[in-house]
Amino acid sequence: MPARALPPLEDGELLAAVDLGSNSFHMVVARHVLGQLRIVDRIKETVRLAEGLDGRGGLDPAVMPRALDCLARFGQRIASIPPHRVRAIATNTVRQLANPQAFLLPAETALGHGIDVVAGREEARLIYLGVAHGKQLPPGKRRLVIDIGGGSTEFIVGQGFEPIERESLQMGCIASTRRFFPDGKLSRKRWKEARTEITAEFQQFAQLFRARGWDEAMGSSGTIKSVCDISIALKLTKASITAESLAEIRERVLEFDRVAEVKLPGLSGDRRPILAGGLLVLDAAFAELGIERMYVSDYALREGVLYDLLGRSRDEDPREASIQALCDRYGVNLEQAGRVEATALRLFDQVQADWKLEPDERRLLGWAARIHEIGLAVAHSQYHVHGAYLAEHSDIAGFSRTEQQWLAALLRNQRRSLYLAAFDRLPDRLMANAVNCALLLRLAVLLHRSHHREPLPVVELDIGEGQMVLRLSRRWLDAHPLTRADLDTEREHLQDIGRRLSIRAV
Amino acid sequence: MPARALPPLEDGELLAAVDLGSNSFHMVVARHVLGQLRIVDRIKETVRLAEGLDGRGGLDPAVMPRALDCLARFGQRIASIPPHRVRAIATNTVRQLANPQAFLLPAETALGHGIDVVAGREEARLIYLGVAHGKQLPPGKRRLVIDIGGGSTEFIVGQGFEPIERESLQMGCIASTRRFFPDGKLSRKRWKEARTEITAEFQQFAQLFRARGWDEAMGSSGTIKSVCDISIALKLTKASITAESLAEIRERVLEFDRVAEVKLPGLSGDRRPILAGGLLVLDAAFAELGIERMYVSDYALREGVLYDLLGRSRDEDPREASIQALCDRYGVNLEQAGRVEATALRLFDQVQADWKLEPDERRLLGWAARIHEIGLAVAHSQYHVHGAYLAEHSDIAGFSRTEQQWLAALLRNQRRSLYLAAFDRLPDRLMANAVNCALLLRLAVLLHRSHHREPLPVVELDIGEGQMVLRLSRRWLDAHPLTRADLDTEREHLQDIGRRLSIRAV
Repeated sequence: MPARALPPLEDGELLAAVDLGSNSFHMVVARHVLGQLRIVDRIKETVRLAEGLDGRGGLDPAVMPRALDCLARFGQRIASIPPHRVRAIATNTVRQLANPQAFLLPAETALGHGIDVVAGREEARLIYLGVAHGKQLPPGKRRLVIDIGGGSTEFIVGQGFEPIERESLQMGCIASTRRFFPDGKLSRKRWKEARTEITAEFQQFAQLFRARGWDEAMGSSGTIKSVCDISIALKLTKASITAESLAEIRERVLEFDRVAEVKLPGLSGDRRPILAGGLLVLDAAFAELGIERMYVSDYALREGVLYDLLGRSRDEDPREASIQALCDRYGVNLEQAGRVEATALRLFDQVQADWKLEPDERRLLGWAARIHEIGLAVAHSQYHVHGAYLAEHSDIAGFSRTEQQWLAALLRNQRRSLYLAAFDRLPDRLMANAVNCALLLRLAVLLHRSHHREPLPVVELDIGEGQMVLRLSRRWLDAHPLTRADLDTEREHLQDIGRRLSIRAV
Repeated sequence: MPARALPPLEDGELLAAVDLGSNSFHMVVARHVLGQLRIVDRIKETVRLAEGLDGRGGLDPAVMPRALDCLARFGQRIASIPPHRVRAIATNTVRQLANPQAFLLPAETALGHGIDVVAGREEARLIYLGVAHGKQLPPGKRRLVIDIGGGSTEFIVGQGFEPIERESLQMGCIASTRRFFPDGKLSRKRWKEARTEITAEFQQFAQLFRARGWDEAMGSSGTIKSVCDISIALKLTKASITAESLAEIRERVLEFDRVAEVKLPGLSGDRRPILAGGLLVLDAAFAELGIERMYVSDYALREGVLYDLLGRSRDEDPREASIQALCDRYGVNLEQAGRVEATALRLFDQVQADWKLEPDERRLLGWAARIHEIGLAVAHSQYHVHGAYLAEHSDIAGFSRTEQQWLAALLRNQRRSLYLAAFDRLPDRLMANAVNCALLLRLAVLLHRSHHREPLPVVELDIGEGQMVLRLSRRWLDAHPLTRADLDTEREHLQDIGRRLSIRAV
């Protein structure tokens, strides 16, 4: 286990989570009080980022100022919170961009913090975590959570704070409204056709979810909140959505000829143009999952991110368990992985100051070392490439896409010639440190290449005059000519990318 | 379990195996007598294919006629044996080619049979299988087998007919002679430097092999046979190589100044120019693995291929166990896989004659169905792509590279739009059938998309006037509107690649 890399949370410290959703951007700020989080501020702005998507991965430049202005306002509020206490998450719309960096770079500048893109199923995990903290169920009870976002919809069945099944569908309220009512016209026939298409998407997972079962259904998004508000305003229910109230609302919506004309008590003007698509998805979900009644949660993705951040800073980092699960699945030799990890972290500590490495990078380096051999489970030949593939594409709970790409780049570069293209997908701000961490992993892998148990002698690494200087005992080097030869080869590999390594026998 | 796809072996039938090695091509023909194989013919020709490699994946055209002439002679001998009783294997030199088809296409024409390229570790498995059939060890005893080929060297520890550890190194007798003595000069200093480099390659697996241990070491290649012959001719040993006799031979070789001048009793002229590189590898293997004595096996890769072929035609197909192992590793839902497999094979049987599909393609289709969901273990999103990656890159015992690419192409195309580029790496002769089998897999996956247990109704597929006609009960189709919609979408996907599907409700 790596030592805790982040400074412990003090009483009174602030944490913040930002959710760059496809419809709204949210920010929530909380104070750490007596081991608990107390939410002290919430901001929501309707940015409708998804409206800017052109279907080919491009983003309408007209949407940018709205997004950046909002992020600048958020950034001002959290300017005094240190970076490791803030986490900003981008979801479906940014996942759709062909060139996400073109959006993320100015967005990060405006916010003053890095932004992590998360995959749909990771988003589902975080939503569940948020909802589960909002209202806890009695032990042993299960909950179905649905979040209809602007671009995607997440479904989770879970128990306690743990999701059991997670699913993410490419259909949110903005996306569905645009897809099924492109000219803004509403009709019963269109509704029916759209329902068939949406229902088809449920086929593969609805049976699995129903087999898992749940005791309570909860929704956590603007669409679901609106439908509940309408239901209450129409006096159909008191504080929830039922199958009957939903049917009644659908019938009322279908009395309008155009999406934009829909007017119902309880429906805000903001929500009006995107209600139809969201209602379609909710209608299908009730039917396909057999939901009778759904309650609304005030907690959602943003609170999930906050509690995840709390866990990360408390040695309850959910990523730790995911790395362990990967090691189990791929039968990692934990002894060897542990030796490489210990050496990599020792080297990290020696150069952290010189290279200005971040605390979280220490954790990531440790995890990369832990899983560096997972590719062996696929095949021995090119296992560093297979390992990188698995690290990048696996569904690893707790990791953002960027973090997975970071791990993948390190695994790909753990041996042989350096392949810098593997770092290309990382944001610029992370690249230099990631390459440096890869160099540390390479040295650790090299020094333990024999897979022997014998402990390494003292290895000193420091940075001086633009080169890495590695000091090893002369006696040990003389007794290990193969390592000596490997170090010489490594020096050549580094030269190929314009880096210098000097090996000193002392 | 799929029904046996190949006709059973009759008494007196012939089987043949061809090994297109980097140094020599071998062929062995055997007769099936009372359930056993009796070898009736062996041919070996020194083609030195590896000499034609230019280091950038090109092949010197001067080498082609030697190879094709040899294969034409082999082809003449086995012209009367049906294709499913012949298996030709290409190894390291063909693995190195940038464009293997440019060699394989004329080679297959000359031989009159298809040629399978196998990966290094599959080669190791087949070598072990051959050696294990040559001389059986008492139960519970383990054996180390080393085969120094022209381009690569394979190492195996096994027990009975089962390999336990397999390793393949990129260093054979031709490759090492060229690499370490490029100008043909021999010297003690060069030998020592080369030994350090070779020893480094042993680092990662030698410890593992030594931990496994063995009771007997056996070698199965021309290099090892030659060294044993020299040892006997020098009266150093009676019928084996010992660490001492090997040291003595090394000293005698080092008395010569040039590789080509090496003359020793027992050494054939043929072997002279490539002894040095092979001896280097053997010298390192003895030292790093701690071998005291090594016996020579007359059985090698070619016999392994023969026994593998015998197993394939006897319901002891080693590929069956490998597919099962993949299903276990990736936690495949075997019920769903079984449903899809059964439907895919039913469709196959209905169109086999029209599409001229081969018996072995029925097996491959069944296996593709069995593993079609393995990618889910990586991630739900894009699981067909992950499944294809695993099928292509995993070390799957019993499968040739071509067969793995065949499986991968089907997995990649199991759903969504067709991606024909996935078939590009298959030899032309297999492509049309592979695409057709993919269409069958797609239909089977589609018909079982709901993952329900309910049995399918009768589904009839036939080929008429250039289109596929699928007949399903009207009542069933009406009761399954989602499948109906999926079939309509499938028709559009097929149209995109110029194929026609007609769906008839009957």
